[in-house]
Amino acid sequence: MISQWEKSPLYRIAYPRSIAFFGASNNFNRMGSIMLSSLQSGGFEGPIYPVHPKEETVRGLRAYRSVQDLPEVPDLAIIVLPTEIVCDTLEECGKKGIKHAIVVSGGFREMGSEGLERQKRLVYVAKRYGMNILGPNCLGVANLHHKFNPTPIEAEGEAGFVGLASQSGSFITQMFNYLYLHGMGFSTAFSVGNEAVIDIVDCLEYLGACPHTKVITLYLEGISRGREFMKVAREIVPHKPIVALYVGGSETGKKAGLSHTGALSGPDDIYDAVFRQCGIIRARTLVELFDFALALGTLPAPQGNRVVIQTHSGGPGATAADACGRAGLRLPDLSPETVERLRSYLPHTASTSNPVDLTFSKNNQEHFSAIPDIILEDEEVDMLLIYFLSPVVFIRRFLREAGVPKEQMKLAEDAAVQELTKAILDLRRKHAKPIVGYTFRSLQEKMTWEVLKGGIPIYPDAERAARAMAALVRYHRIKSEFHSRHVE
Amino acid sequence: MISQWEKSPLYRIAYPRSIAFFGASNNFNRMGSIMLSSLQSGGFEGPIYPVHPKEETVRGLRAYRSVQDLPEVPDLAIIVLPTEIVCDTLEECGKKGIKHAIVVSGGFREMGSEGLERQKRLVYVAKRYGMNILGPNCLGVANLHHKFNPTPIEAEGEAGFVGLASQSGSFITQMFNYLYLHGMGFSTAFSVGNEAVIDIVDCLEYLGACPHTKVITLYLEGISRGREFMKVAREIVPHKPIVALYVGGSETGKKAGLSHTGALSGPDDIYDAVFRQCGIIRARTLVELFDFALALGTLPAPQGNRVVIQTHSGGPGATAADACGRAGLRLPDLSPETVERLRSYLPHTASTSNPVDLTFSKNNQEHFSAIPDIILEDEEVDMLLIYFLSPVVFIRRFLREAGVPKEQMKLAEDAAVQELTKAILDLRRKHAKPIVGYTFRSLQEKMTWEVLKGGIPIYPDAERAARAMAALVRYHRIKSEFHSRHVE
Repeated sequence: MISQWEKSPLYRIAYPRSIAFFGASNNFNRMGSIMLSSLQSGGFEGPIYPVHPKEETVRGLRAYRSVQDLPEVPDLAIIVLPTEIVCDTLEECGKKGIKHAIVVSGGFREMGSEGLERQKRLVYVAKRYGMNILGPNCLGVANLHHKFNPTPIEAEGEAGFVGLASQSGSFITQMFNYLYLHGMGFSTAFSVGNEAVIDIVDCLEYLGACPHTKVITLYLEGISRGREFMKVAREIVPHKPIVALYVGGSETGKKAGLSHTGALSGPDDIYDAVFRQCGIIRARTLVELFDFALALGTLPAPQGNRVVIQTHSGGPGATAADACGRAGLRLPDLSPETVERLRSYLPHTASTSNPVDLTFSKNNQEHFSAIPDIILEDEEVDMLLIYFLSPVVFIRRFLREAGVPKEQMKLAEDAAVQELTKAILDLRRKHAKPIVGYTFRSLQEKMTWEVLKGGIPIYPDAERAARAMAALVRYHRIKSEFHSRHVE
Repeated sequence: MISQWEKSPLYRIAYPRSIAFFGASNNFNRMGSIMLSSLQSGGFEGPIYPVHPKEETVRGLRAYRSVQDLPEVPDLAIIVLPTEIVCDTLEECGKKGIKHAIVVSGGFREMGSEGLERQKRLVYVAKRYGMNILGPNCLGVANLHHKFNPTPIEAEGEAGFVGLASQSGSFITQMFNYLYLHGMGFSTAFSVGNEAVIDIVDCLEYLGACPHTKVITLYLEGISRGREFMKVAREIVPHKPIVALYVGGSETGKKAGLSHTGALSGPDDIYDAVFRQCGIIRARTLVELFDFALALGTLPAPQGNRVVIQTHSGGPGATAADACGRAGLRLPDLSPETVERLRSYLPHTASTSNPVDLTFSKNNQEHFSAIPDIILEDEEVDMLLIYFLSPVVFIRRFLREAGVPKEQMKLAEDAAVQELTKAILDLRRKHAKPIVGYTFRSLQEKMTWEVLKGGIPIYPDAERAARAMAALVRYHRIKSEFHSRHVE
């Protein structure tokens, strides 16, 4: 494992101070122009030097005829050129002394034997000039902590804690919106493309050392350096969780991956075994990959797998119980003391078995403070799963019924929501136990959104919440096994 | 099976012309008041007669001291009273000649032996007066086709094609928002509660006959009249798909269901067998229940399970391929003729294997017209699954780059979106093959939302799309087996 983050060959790829940009023009209908435009609109703070054979300026920036003309040796070259001139350009970059490059252009190994020859030349150039190259056939990097996003889609949301190394470029550039809507953000995301020089193992190492990254996610279609991958993963897992989505195992996934990046995939059960041996949590789908990341990046370590479900509605409670059972979580009974303490808060129709079903509750405040507080104090309880029917729906009606004038509605509503939000976020600070929510309404609805942004993961489905909690339990078991082995 | 919809005991419960309402007051902090308020704000068009021992008016409506005082015999009584006076009130309703009632109040079978005695009396009253009673311990009905929603949450969205019979009330009242956001709406939704008189089988029969219902969904914690359930289901399935979510099978789900409605659940594999024998499609989660309903309610019958995936991004294509494989769908190769026809539309980096990966496409229009049109014309293709990265993201940037002034942006954007939307909806009309989309962005995003509302199901995940398509294939196989058996 690299001891210092800044020593990684990827450091100046994720944190370039200056950039030479090849392949952007004043015609916006080009991938290069679109990518440069993202970089500009993202507010990148260092100098950008477009290299263009004819133009004086490109997208408002002074352009240079050749890399030799640049006023300094930039940290990074981004290359979005026609396949045929990529290697020559890299060679020129090498001569100038540029040590890092992102090659976006395709037409290499993924295109058969001719492409393979071209890729060999690219590797040769990299070695000759000691260049760290990401790609080819990739979308590079997104690192909002450095206002650095040269990918084709402009970033939404903010920098976050999810590290990603992906054998698909789409999953870095097309996931800003998704992560934002689900309460997350990338720390740094790498698209590795054909992995001619820098590969997924290097990214894993980098993300393991990156202080912004709380959880590492991997999208894999195949791993070439298996032994090194396992070694690095095993070094990281005791400190930082890794979640992986591997799609090369199924016949259909394998076929798709081969034509995509030319990755050599292997049977599903081999990858299963690899992941298990290094303590990597496996996700079955992209949604699960980030669901697990959310839980692992926000929640404290649970002592065990005992979940109490708090609901005000039987059906959502029962489906959550069913989902928890299937995910391998246990639903303990509350202790008699806890039941006794809860009694004064509950209507006679309520159930104090697990799920705790508050039914029609008259006091929203208790729903998000006293009641979950008492449950979390029970020693038999490791985690709390709360059904989140947005109280705003009711608050709004009550205010309207109470005759609050229209122009004061928003203020009154916000005050009520703020109080409830504060109550539940206080619980999060008070108890070192995971609190998770689920809802069938939009995550963007008032309160829900505030609570989610406040650090309590909320999932748009009980099944997803249960599986994420199970992943959390699994990771912390693995982690403590690693540590106890180390102590022996 | 009932031959005429209007003959069902549930018809006047779903389509009451007039209502006696028990348990609403001028104190909004009561379940009854909240429910009456929903009924009023939903615009119910018939007379509502609140019955209240003291008030002159309730929520602006003239109130009556007793049911005997009502100026007519209303079609339906809705009862949200304290448990102790429910049966007496029902008796009075019976004397008045009211033939239908919804009993919302709890405190019956679900509350142990005392409650069981009370429920027996309720059944006795029902028999004595020939009353059709829904409940007790239920939330009644939501039927937006009749502007009839007395459930505690105000409706969002419009009436639709999804019929629901649910052993949880939450799933009728708390799903308006969910269904709306996913492009659906209830035809009619029943909460059956303790099923003292009317049960899930009656609802199934009703929904089977209801002309607004294109697909029936069931939420089950346990079935008591197993034989009748199977008989009715088998009669409906050849004409209308049924999807069921059963949560009583897992230990945790069973426990939760028992304290919820007191339903007697049975082992999971028995229910599996029951569903299989009557051709009911089983959903594992609530999300899947409605995902399947969307596909079954909007898509034509596929000829087989062969799916072509169209994408412009490798990773989303590969995960979809993986998901299709796991769901039991096949990914055929395109015929050489189709590949030839596609060639002129594709950049050299594109892949014409399956997934068809258009990569960076210069022409959005072709993406949603010529290309899918050619694919759908291939005889080896039964269904098309399209990755939907919202083109709006790019359209907006292109317009901005083209210098379209800010005040004309919306107009230009809308025109571009409308053209694309029209193109893909035209394909839906042209081809009798299922077209399904998936996206990782919000379903509410322009274009996506229009396409979804236009009748092409779009799922916020490839996995969900694949499983829904597999359910569609399964249903139509079952249906044709039923029909061929019938012909023999």
